[in-house]
Amino acid sequence: MNGSPVWGSASDRADEVRLARAYLCTVAEPPAPALAAFVDEHGPVAAAARVRRGEVPKRVASETDARRGRDVAEAHLRTARTIGARLLTPEDRDWPVAPFASFAICEHEHLHAPLALWTLGPGRLAELAERSVAIVGSRAATGYGTWAANWMAHGVAELGFTVVSGAAYGIDGAAHRGALAAEGPTVAVLACGVDRIYPAGHERLLRYIASTGLVVSEYPPGAVPARHRFLVRNRLIAGLAAGTVVVEAAWRSGARRTASDASLLGRPVMAVPGPVTSALSAGCHRLLREPGTVAVTRAEEVIEEVGRIGIDLAVSPAPAIQMRATDVLSGPTLRVHESLAERALDLRELSVDSGLPIELVRTALRELERRGMAERVERGWCRRRGLVAGGWRGDA
Amino acid sequence: MNGSPVWGSASDRADEVRLARAYLCTVAEPPAPALAAFVDEHGPVAAAARVRRGEVPKRVASETDARRGRDVAEAHLRTARTIGARLLTPEDRDWPVAPFASFAICEHEHLHAPLALWTLGPGRLAELAERSVAIVGSRAATGYGTWAANWMAHGVAELGFTVVSGAAYGIDGAAHRGALAAEGPTVAVLACGVDRIYPAGHERLLRYIASTGLVVSEYPPGAVPARHRFLVRNRLIAGLAAGTVVVEAAWRSGARRTASDASLLGRPVMAVPGPVTSALSAGCHRLLREPGTVAVTRAEEVIEEVGRIGIDLAVSPAPAIQMRATDVLSGPTLRVHESLAERALDLRELSVDSGLPIELVRTALRELERRGMAERVERGWCRRRGLVAGGWRGDA
Repeated sequence: MNGSPVWGSASDRADEVRLARAYLCTVAEPPAPALAAFVDEHGPVAAAARVRRGEVPKRVASETDARRGRDVAEAHLRTARTIGARLLTPEDRDWPVAPFASFAICEHEHLHAPLALWTLGPGRLAELAERSVAIVGSRAATGYGTWAANWMAHGVAELGFTVVSGAAYGIDGAAHRGALAAEGPTVAVLACGVDRIYPAGHERLLRYIASTGLVVSEYPPGAVPARHRFLVRNRLIAGLAAGTVVVEAAWRSGARRTASDASLLGRPVMAVPGPVTSALSAGCHRLLREPGTVAVTRAEEVIEEVGRIGIDLAVSPAPAIQMRATDVLSGPTLRVHESLAERALDLRELSVDSGLPIELVRTALRELERRGMAERVERGWCRRRGLVAGGWRGDA
Repeated sequence: MNGSPVWGSASDRADEVRLARAYLCTVAEPPAPALAAFVDEHGPVAAAARVRRGEVPKRVASETDARRGRDVAEAHLRTARTIGARLLTPEDRDWPVAPFASFAICEHEHLHAPLALWTLGPGRLAELAERSVAIVGSRAATGYGTWAANWMAHGVAELGFTVVSGAAYGIDGAAHRGALAAEGPTVAVLACGVDRIYPAGHERLLRYIASTGLVVSEYPPGAVPARHRFLVRNRLIAGLAAGTVVVEAAWRSGARRTASDASLLGRPVMAVPGPVTSALSAGCHRLLREPGTVAVTRAEEVIEEVGRIGIDLAVSPAPAIQMRATDVLSGPTLRVHESLAERALDLRELSVDSGLPIELVRTALRELERRGMAERVERGWCRRRGLVAGGWRGDA
């Protein structure tokens, strides 16, 4: 940004910037890499003025000429105010500067930060994005996928992370709901205006997110959810979150694009495994076969990828496992234990059976006796059931 | 090996070697790294003679002293002959030289080639091992795992590969059966003598394998399936096969050891994903989270890892997918297509709605018209359903 507020108050200046950004984010259909670069170079106010007059380089013109005469910025800002939405701009304190910084260093042209974001809800985007995970996947999710998305999101939210998703049917909705059930914040990034309820069946969900978290879009109020907008929107989901989890996805799927964007932005890509019989896990397994994708089976493993070491848990604990009494035995002791039987065997017999020297057999028997797993009897040694730390347990 | 046959016929000499190996593979309980190195150094006949007399270094003695006086080699060879088994030695043409060469360069002491192998069945081990895959997993398999093992093994066998496994209940059995159902060869590596039916419930399966493929063990006839022998046996499954697939495994599992041995031997390790809700897939997912493990969902992906490029298929084809008429459209053309509606729109309206310059809209419309996806009407352009290569298809 260049220039400084030489006229009017700071507030007037802020309004002017906001109006310019409202114009800019409508005048070109994202992704509009040439316009984005042009705004970076000249600042929003000067850039908007030049776009309006058509005084721009050819590449910018081809992105902006079709709509430059149709200035609906004030109308959009009015509509937003009516429904309680606002236009968040890079000049605002809530702008997610750190997450979006990756766009600047990413070399893929279509991956650029939005020129502004329309937001609806009490959440503060910069704060929400700081510790966040994108959980995405198919609209046509299975019962398994819906459960997994819900459960993962619930766990991620309980660990203090925001769940970012796209509010679609299937995995997206299940992820938002899992976070809400854990009373965690969740952010829905739409491919249409934040004044639109899309999909229609998610009206209650969207209202709930708008009342507790944040509904976000780079498309102005009234914008329809055109098909190509979903893929363009996916870069924002990938760019806001510290990592992306694909829960269920067909072999070809929009979620793959989110994962690919996340990877290009240098964020961890995770996939939830599922049955190989499920066409809705084929996309996840395809991702898992690509370098860099991490298989995740629970929220702790997700946080392990995106969490900050030392602050969030660094290594997830192993799931609870059953110990056998013999688990603690070293190789030779285990072999002697295997050779023991109900009937008594002497040292020589145990040595031949186990293939171990007499001295090793003797040492092993001492350890087994101490553990209550071998018993000295009249003609030698017998096996006994083992004592495990914490209590007696049958050694099956 | 040193020395040459200075007395008797070549056949006498071969019998002498076989007898020496029969003695050596019983005198120490595998893994017996010191004895293995001693035999490599002195050859089987001289090594056997010195072990019998106790004229060996201390490390070898500690592996062999307990049993060196109990020479049951001739009895074992007799028993083997009775049941139609034989002792395969490194001196035989059928010895799997190439697969076992990895043991020599592997630095892990417990991973050494067997001193000999007792085999039962018509299969020739070297030939069977040349194109082979180990398919292993839990005894307590689920319906899903059993199906997956069977299906994978069937596919692997149909692609001309031998299925190597451990004949246990659960995944192992399902893998052998899948190969047999495809009339493919399969090799069962046991942790007991080849004369023993273990597990008892697999009597028919083992007899079938012994009549069509090969049952193999480094333990002599009569040896019982002691617990520690399963882990030791697993190195032979990993060492014979060109790669190891774990289909289902608990968090802690013997199949993990097979996978770990395969990895140490430089062979590909593969795991079949499953539901994250399944404790029997936890071991597979744990493997998938470790570097180097490849997720496999069908036989072609397995062969991709172990097959020889140019001979076996190198890249598996993508599964059949549904094409949408819009899948073939480039970005701008897709955007214009999205802007089209049932009612006619003129060039200017389409330009504003899509945000594209008039010229690009015109080019896009020409393409869409050619594809039968747009129609010129009185006042502009309308959307039409698309024509896809091969036939008409609704564009949902």
